[in-house]
Amino acid sequence: MLRDVELSKKIDKEEYDKLIPDMRLKLGALQRDLNKSKIPVMLVFEGWHASGKSLMVNEILRAMDPRCFQMHAIDEPTPEEAQKPFMWRFWMKTPPSGLTAIFDQGWYSRFIEEKADIDGKKMLLTSRKEQEAISQIFEFEKVLATGGGSEQSNPYLILKFFLDISKKEQKKRLEKLEDRKVSVFLVNKADWKQHKHYGRYMPVFDRMIELTDAIYAPWKIVEADNWRFATVKVYVTIIDAFNKGLQQAKKVQAKGKKMATMTPVEKEMTGSILDKIDLNKSMPEDEYHERLKTCQKELAELQMRAFEKKLPVVIAYEGMDASGKGGNIKRLSESLDPRGYEVIPIGVPTDVEKNHHYLWRFWIHFPSKGYFTIFDRTWYGRVLVERVEGLTSEKYWRKAYNEINRMEEALSDNGTVVIKFWLQIDPKTELERFKSRETNPNKEWKIDINDWKDRSKWNQYTIAADEMLYHTSTTHAPWHIIPSDDKHYSRITTMDTIIDTIKKAL
Amino acid sequence: MLRDVELSKKIDKEEYDKLIPDMRLKLGALQRDLNKSKIPVMLVFEGWHASGKSLMVNEILRAMDPRCFQMHAIDEPTPEEAQKPFMWRFWMKTPPSGLTAIFDQGWYSRFIEEKADIDGKKMLLTSRKEQEAISQIFEFEKVLATGGGSEQSNPYLILKFFLDISKKEQKKRLEKLEDRKVSVFLVNKADWKQHKHYGRYMPVFDRMIELTDAIYAPWKIVEADNWRFATVKVYVTIIDAFNKGLQQAKKVQAKGKKMATMTPVEKEMTGSILDKIDLNKSMPEDEYHERLKTCQKELAELQMRAFEKKLPVVIAYEGMDASGKGGNIKRLSESLDPRGYEVIPIGVPTDVEKNHHYLWRFWIHFPSKGYFTIFDRTWYGRVLVERVEGLTSEKYWRKAYNEINRMEEALSDNGTVVIKFWLQIDPKTELERFKSRETNPNKEWKIDINDWKDRSKWNQYTIAADEMLYHTSTTHAPWHIIPSDDKHYSRITTMDTIIDTIKKAL
Repeated sequence: MLRDVELSKKIDKEEYDKLIPDMRLKLGALQRDLNKSKIPVMLVFEGWHASGKSLMVNEILRAMDPRCFQMHAIDEPTPEEAQKPFMWRFWMKTPPSGLTAIFDQGWYSRFIEEKADIDGKKMLLTSRKEQEAISQIFEFEKVLATGGGSEQSNPYLILKFFLDISKKEQKKRLEKLEDRKVSVFLVNKADWKQHKHYGRYMPVFDRMIELTDAIYAPWKIVEADNWRFATVKVYVTIIDAFNKGLQQAKKVQAKGKKMATMTPVEKEMTGSILDKIDLNKSMPEDEYHERLKTCQKELAELQMRAFEKKLPVVIAYEGMDASGKGGNIKRLSESLDPRGYEVIPIGVPTDVEKNHHYLWRFWIHFPSKGYFTIFDRTWYGRVLVERVEGLTSEKYWRKAYNEINRMEEALSDNGTVVIKFWLQIDPKTELERFKSRETNPNKEWKIDINDWKDRSKWNQYTIAADEMLYHTSTTHAPWHIIPSDDKHYSRITTMDTIIDTIKKAL
Repeated sequence: MLRDVELSKKIDKEEYDKLIPDMRLKLGALQRDLNKSKIPVMLVFEGWHASGKSLMVNEILRAMDPRCFQMHAIDEPTPEEAQKPFMWRFWMKTPPSGLTAIFDQGWYSRFIEEKADIDGKKMLLTSRKEQEAISQIFEFEKVLATGGGSEQSNPYLILKFFLDISKKEQKKRLEKLEDRKVSVFLVNKADWKQHKHYGRYMPVFDRMIELTDAIYAPWKIVEADNWRFATVKVYVTIIDAFNKGLQQAKKVQAKGKKMATMTPVEKEMTGSILDKIDLNKSMPEDEYHERLKTCQKELAELQMRAFEKKLPVVIAYEGMDASGKGGNIKRLSESLDPRGYEVIPIGVPTDVEKNHHYLWRFWIHFPSKGYFTIFDRTWYGRVLVERVEGLTSEKYWRKAYNEINRMEEALSDNGTVVIKFWLQIDPKTELERFKSRETNPNKEWKIDINDWKDRSKWNQYTIAADEMLYHTSTTHAPWHIIPSDDKHYSRITTMDTIIDTIKKAL
């Protein structure tokens, strides 16, 4: 509770002048160590208006190497940001490994401004909109702070400061700012509104802090009526957290084990979901061409309507090699207006992507309102290829089921339609398609040595896929398993599914 | 001249239906080859309103692999883009190696909308604003199409189409669009305005095409009164250009040679600029501290004024290792409001950066109006480290002098102040600083084995720097050579220079 805090704590000038130079040096040294250890850091400064957030940020930045930090002053969303899910613009600002991002106000201020119903009578953050936002914030920090476990970035070190001042002190400061010509423009209506309703804001801040305090992303309340006390407390807190972060990083992270080859008995135990799929479904040539035309026409119209209604759509394709993802996407995309969609092929992460959280490279591509993003392979790589090839340890890919569910839920809560396809084929079909690719000069480009390698792991991929389908089929983002031995059937069925789903959402 | 073109050329339906399927296949195959050869491609579609640009783009996209293209429909600049130099948003959209970017209208339409004085009486694109824009466009295409020569991306294959229709045909199409409920919203005032002044626009288009036609980025005029003829011509042109592009790519690019170690005579010939620098300049401790305070205060005020006046500022630091770039930047940045500046350290390019033109990673960081960008090492790496280490062949680093001059000129024409520092030290000073870094635990992080390696190339770097200073000191972006054996003197002098330059610009 904020009011349990003793705001009048003080440090006198002499002591302060003795402490600060040393702390600056220490912080600078620790920051370079974090940089060397490739640990990404996020420091968030929140607090009452006129509590000195910007001053504090400036003080901390003085101690830092300007090449190792990124500073973000967060204000209203830009027009582009306003078209994206709530947390998108913060995902865009998560720093790469080794850098420190400092937020002069962050997602909390934005939550208060954009989502919280302060003016109303109930202020317990219980409306659906508020709860969704809080849970998205919670998930954002959790997923970053507990990430890692593969060749991708280390877990994020996250610290959140709330600068707390009394109503009396706030008034004094606002008046002082208004008194001076150089600072009068810093005070606006919103400041005085908050001051007037100080008592209403307090329980909101309290509850917000309570709901989002976590051991991996803790809140630090800073008594800030006395500037010197506040500064020293912030320094001490950061230095302590940086020290601990460095120690933890030294514990080596175990790499994953590749999935072992299976015994015959184990083979029988697999495939409880995928086994049930009837792969004999097919569609004759002439029916296919007719249906294709109708579907493409309908999709073109739906895209227009989705644009008008500002409905964002994510369409995700997974499936074994040669299961027909590319062909499916081609038929889908050629029906769409290219100004309104993007196809994102997902492969081995680039080194820039490796320096971010594993979900970052998907977040940055999520569509604006009214647009489509089509993923050719997806974030499910974490629980498929990374699991089978042992790129990620079990602890981390298991955790991914929930992380992914929460991410898709956040998309859905923000109005995005998420459509996921698993294209299922028989191993014999794959073999035939591989062979035909090798001999057909128009298709040869589609196959390389890796495809043959992965093929030997068919069963392991099947187990991984089966488990994935079980854990990540949710109400807001169900999987559609598509029998794809017959390409015609597969293409028309995915299109039908997309049409149905978008129609329902409109 | 557009009116030399016979617009009524036709192809009948039967022939068209025979030609197109084969052309689609060919184009798809070539695109995959380009992808494999890592050649980046830009196709730009311009033309009269209602000439069918979007339809043509859609047709071409049908033939392409949706994973290998990026489609950009260019409209008015976003609020963010409007804060940047004219070509910035197009630099942001240059595709990485192997991808094809298709522009449904590009920089030419934007030039016409934003820069050209169509309503006036003179329409020869002779105003200063128009000429600057044309020269920036010219330079943009040239630098991309003739790039390469290092480990970075291949030269860009650029094709520009102008879809030409007669005034009569334009009227027919606009009326037809307006007649139908589904398309009436596609027609607006600007369309009819262009139609009304068709005769005025023609010489502007003509002159624009004439001024920007180049062998490495040619204009293709497409007679588009007949849709089928236009489509076939576009296909034929692209297929031909892709074929030629692939053939050229096969000619292996020679790598650069490292600069050879010098004979004593050669050593005497070097340093005509840097030799003249008096390195004995210094500033006593107490004077330094006093001046530092005044300079920092003045810089803080100037930053505020630059923000108000929307003046963008680029500050670039180059110099040998241990010449004091970091310390200079620290003293500068701590005086600035962190919400208004960014420090960009330049090192070995990431693999994403390597897949773009070598200037791309600088362009994306150029400041918005009112902001500062501080570069710790710069685009001059092309003519310094890349030259000395033989990463780029002589042909390409020599070309870079002019490319860089033109880039800085574009910044300057768009109102950006460019301040460049070369921090000059004596080799003895470097040695002392390296030694002190090794023994001082607070500075140890600053030195590694590469620093010692580069040191042995002092003379080669000096020759490269000397030549660079000669070729790239321009009126719009002069070099400031700062004697930096004494850190105090160096820091105060750079700050003074920044203060003077910004004051003059305000």
